[in-house]
Amino acid sequence: MIDFRPIAAILGVLLAILGTTMMIPALVDVVTGQGDYIVYAASAVITAFVGLSLWLAGRTSEVEKLDLRQAFVLTTASWGLLSAFAAIPFMWADTALTFTDAYFEAMSGLTTTGATVISGLDHRPAGVLIWRAFLHWYGGVGIIVLAMALLPMLRIGGMQLFRAESSDKSEKVLPRAAQLAKGIVGTYVLLTVACAFTYAFCGMSVFDAVAHAMATISTGGFSTHDASIGYFHSPAIEYAAIFFMLSGSLPFVLYVRVLAGDFSRLIANTEVRLFLSLVILFALVSFVEQVRGNIAHGEAAMRHAVFNVVTLMSTTGFIAVDYTDWGPPTDVLYFIVMFLGACTGSTAGGMKSFRIAILGSALAQHLRRIIYPNGVFPVRYGGKPIGDDVVASVLSFAFLYLATFLVIGIVVNALGFDLITSFSASITALANVGPGLGPVIGPSQNFAGLPDHVIWLLSFAMLLGRLELFTVLVLFLPSFWRR
Amino acid sequence: MIDFRPIAAILGVLLAILGTTMMIPALVDVVTGQGDYIVYAASAVITAFVGLSLWLAGRTSEVEKLDLRQAFVLTTASWGLLSAFAAIPFMWADTALTFTDAYFEAMSGLTTTGATVISGLDHRPAGVLIWRAFLHWYGGVGIIVLAMALLPMLRIGGMQLFRAESSDKSEKVLPRAAQLAKGIVGTYVLLTVACAFTYAFCGMSVFDAVAHAMATISTGGFSTHDASIGYFHSPAIEYAAIFFMLSGSLPFVLYVRVLAGDFSRLIANTEVRLFLSLVILFALVSFVEQVRGNIAHGEAAMRHAVFNVVTLMSTTGFIAVDYTDWGPPTDVLYFIVMFLGACTGSTAGGMKSFRIAILGSALAQHLRRIIYPNGVFPVRYGGKPIGDDVVASVLSFAFLYLATFLVIGIVVNALGFDLITSFSASITALANVGPGLGPVIGPSQNFAGLPDHVIWLLSFAMLLGRLELFTVLVLFLPSFWRR
Ligand SMILES: [K+]
Ligand SMILES: [K+]
Repeated sequence: MIDFRPIAAILGVLLAILGTTMMIPALVDVVTGQGDYIVYAASAVITAFVGLSLWLAGRTSEVEKLDLRQAFVLTTASWGLLSAFAAIPFMWADTALTFTDAYFEAMSGLTTTGATVISGLDHRPAGVLIWRAFLHWYGGVGIIVLAMALLPMLRIGGMQLFRAESSDKSEKVLPRAAQLAKGIVGTYVLLTVACAFTYAFCGMSVFDAVAHAMATISTGGFSTHDASIGYFHSPAIEYAAIFFMLSGSLPFVLYVRVLAGDFSRLIANTEVRLFLSLVILFALVSFVEQVRGNIAHGEAAMRHAVFNVVTLMSTTGFIAVDYTDWGPPTDVLYFIVMFLGACTGSTAGGMKSFRIAILGSALAQHLRRIIYPNGVFPVRYGGKPIGDDVVASVLSFAFLYLATFLVIGIVVNALGFDLITSFSASITALANVGPGLGPVIGPSQNFAGLPDHVIWLLSFAMLLGRLELFTVLVLFLPSFWRR
Repeated sequence: MIDFRPIAAILGVLLAILGTTMMIPALVDVVTGQGDYIVYAASAVITAFVGLSLWLAGRTSEVEKLDLRQAFVLTTASWGLLSAFAAIPFMWADTALTFTDAYFEAMSGLTTTGATVISGLDHRPAGVLIWRAFLHWYGGVGIIVLAMALLPMLRIGGMQLFRAESSDKSEKVLPRAAQLAKGIVGTYVLLTVACAFTYAFCGMSVFDAVAHAMATISTGGFSTHDASIGYFHSPAIEYAAIFFMLSGSLPFVLYVRVLAGDFSRLIANTEVRLFLSLVILFALVSFVEQVRGNIAHGEAAMRHAVFNVVTLMSTTGFIAVDYTDWGPPTDVLYFIVMFLGACTGSTAGGMKSFRIAILGSALAQHLRRIIYPNGVFPVRYGGKPIGDDVVASVLSFAFLYLATFLVIGIVVNALGFDLITSFSASITALANVGPGLGPVIGPSQNFAGLPDHVIWLLSFAMLLGRLELFTVLVLFLPSFWRR
């Protein structure tokens, strides 16, 4: 049997933090005189109370001895349970969502997806807007710490490749997470502050600047306006967003090293190079297509090309310009870009660049082995040969990712939606991008038009994608619980 | 440099056989008094002449010492070149196709795809109809011999698993192929004759029975009527088609063993079991969906369910009833079924059941390894552990199969077709099924509505799918030609 007490203790601490944070939207509503601050205060009390109870129930256990199986349960339970409590204000505040919709909105925030069921954002009280921003922000830093401290040890989809980056190979999860978290959280706060200042400097109100900075660095993409970044009609803000979305897409451990003076590591990193090369390549294609299709020209075409590729590949999901009518092949290009995603250990979703690199090398090696049956062709990453188990993990992950995408799309389609809606909903949830395509969930629509069972399915898809599939799926294996 | 002489000699023999066979449609046209027998006679002379010249050019070489690289070139060249000559009658006979369309029709025949650009089949001369049937029939037996004799040695997509089935592990290709071919060709002829008799017994004309028997055992699917099997409005014929399409989908080596008295091998075969289980499962789903959707009931619903699942999963592509309006989830189910395909060493296309089994085992093993990092979990097939190289080959194949499907679909979409047309064209060509979906290439339409560049792309897709991707793709590697 799994000892649930350390899990309860940690969930308790996380809930207490979440509850305390609810006082911020309460304060914002008091200051702006909008909304209903009492909702947040009440939610805060409930959340903090449950958190405290859980902590009390589990505190006698040896939390620092958390083992791998407990770590699996903790990870999925964190996102699952925190979303339930983070949903409370969405039900009680003026958004008045059902629990299904509120849970979706909270999960969308904490997984940095940014798909929303709330419309009329421009006229909503500031409290609810800043609450959404905080969910992104917590989700973003949570996923970085998870990806650096936990997933490599859990050997999820080839992430064992990144175990070498830590000197500590022990199975004790918490000490390592705590040590890594410090540097990362510092960088994360620093980048967010820099982003907020830049946005304000470019003309956003202080409130919009703070909320969008939190949505940008977390590559979450919740905006305070229905028109998203397009609301500001400002090339300067779009360029700033491009820069900071890219910042959120790079491995945060590298920032820690750059701050320690080792700048070369950022440039030399295989994944960063591949990611930025793909961004440039796809942006060029999109630029040429816009000019060819007479949609835009010159600086505007280039800006929109880079913005769209970066917003989708970083899986932020901000929208500066509605690209739905650009037609093929731009729409298909954007579809592919969502699959790819950005770098490991960033806040971005998708399959991640390192897996794309390993997939490419594995296929090339396979072809060579067919020609030269007796040759030895190791799969390489960053010039170095990598183990067969990493290759098998990456191939399994890639296959399962595509299969999950297809299954979720098929189920949504079977529930009565058109193919574009079904499959764009599937990938936008799974890759944690946010906006979909098509008449129901396109860039100018939102997810409020979907029935409850689809909303639940997509909430689950966001969780699956954010936790890299296997982390959640192992919980469904009977043998996981048997030991 | 590759020695092309043995390749030329074998291609020459194959062309001579193809040319000689053209006398059959000539004879049929003479007997029926329809069509233009002189077209076939002229095509026969040209084809046989070129074949003889090639044989003369290469005959001095040691054909029996064909090495692996020559085998690769020969395989792709066989289908590519024979399609060009098989296309001649389609240009000159009353079908009067352009070379592009004629090549597509010939490639569609020789790859047992059965997608057609010819309409008004019911009123075409018998010669052109029997010519199409012969292309299927040659393509079908060709692919079985290839899959049993050559692909395992070329280690294509995990096919090395089937090397153990032969006692001869030498790299000499031809002796083994010749030895295997004898038993297989015998079974193939026997099954075709049995199928033709059954069809005639169920009420088809002798001509229709022979043509459809050749299209059934080869899982090709060319019919002599625009309405395909639906033309006959005969449940008996539909049941017969189900039985013989299944016959074409099972591993032909097993028939050889069954004929030698070892019947248990057929029942005990892992791939056969999985394939038949999937057929039953999907047929049940389709049955329930028809009853639920009030489309059909009782025996008719069950017959149509089994027929549709078998025609698509065996990649035959016969049509008994237009299922396009059945809506989700049936249409998506049928889409998946096309991907899966049937057994290795049969005439069917798709990914093949043994790969599905290995994929499933590899994913389960990957999940178990995540839970028990120190456990040993070999991937199993048929209860026996299989090598890491086979698993990596299968995973690479599966990923490349999905990627090729997406790329071809995306290109067709970018050329201006809707998503359903684009992606159904991609999978129906790649899996060698035949009919597509949607307004342009749906079951009641044909491929004549597509522009030339799409037709060429789909011809290439049929070749790629039929030869299991890697066999063709290695030819594009510079290092293949360098040695
Ligand atoms: K996002
Ligand atoms: K077919």
